[in-house]
Amino acid sequence: MERSRDPITDAPLTPEHAEELARTMHALADRTRMLIVSAVLHAPDGELHGRDIQRQLELRQPTASHHLRKLVRAGILAREQRGPYGYYRVVDGALADLCRALGS
Amino acid sequence: MERSRDPITDAPLTPEHAEELARTMHALADRTRMLIVSAVLHAPDGELHGRDIQRQLELRQPTASHHLRKLVRAGILAREQRGPYGYYRVVDGALADLCRALGS
Repeated sequence: MERSRDPITDAPLTPEHAEELARTMHALADRTRMLIVSAVLHAPDGELHGRDIQRQLELRQPTASHHLRKLVRAGILAREQRGPYGYYRVVDGALADLCRALGS
Repeated sequence: MERSRDPITDAPLTPEHAEELARTMHALADRTRMLIVSAVLHAPDGELHGRDIQRQLELRQPTASHHLRKLVRAGILAREQRGPYGYYRVVDGALADLCRALGS
């Protein structure tokens, strides 16, 4: 997923970039989704398969699928099918872009 | 506003911390509020008064007040009354905490 960036001159956000970041924020504005992203970020290889996420966070399968789908659609997680389950990792740059805009 | 922190061992989020960060995310999950935070972060002294925010982003006064109130309530902006207008700055650590949790 290609993300627009502000110039390296560290200018304030453009309305378009603000809109895009607000959508990312919206996808993260949920306790379970924050826990999923954190679990994936802390996984030994930076990836977890769907079943591990479900077990680790004690989620029912439909609940896990719902939240994972939202995170994938928002461009925060990428899903790769290997065997019966999808493997999830955080998309490179997806969160760094957001934190750069927040001055961190 | 005192914020809970995960140990420096960089452990995954606790459910309580995830809840707290999701609330912060929710307050930022809006284009206008992202633009306000960005404008304040980029202000010369790191602060702007309400009227400047209103003018800079071409907002009506009630709209600006609504969004500023949400950002203050969420612990993202602090408001200090000086003369007829409030001055706003980003609360130290409010966004760093969030970005640390996101691995940035």
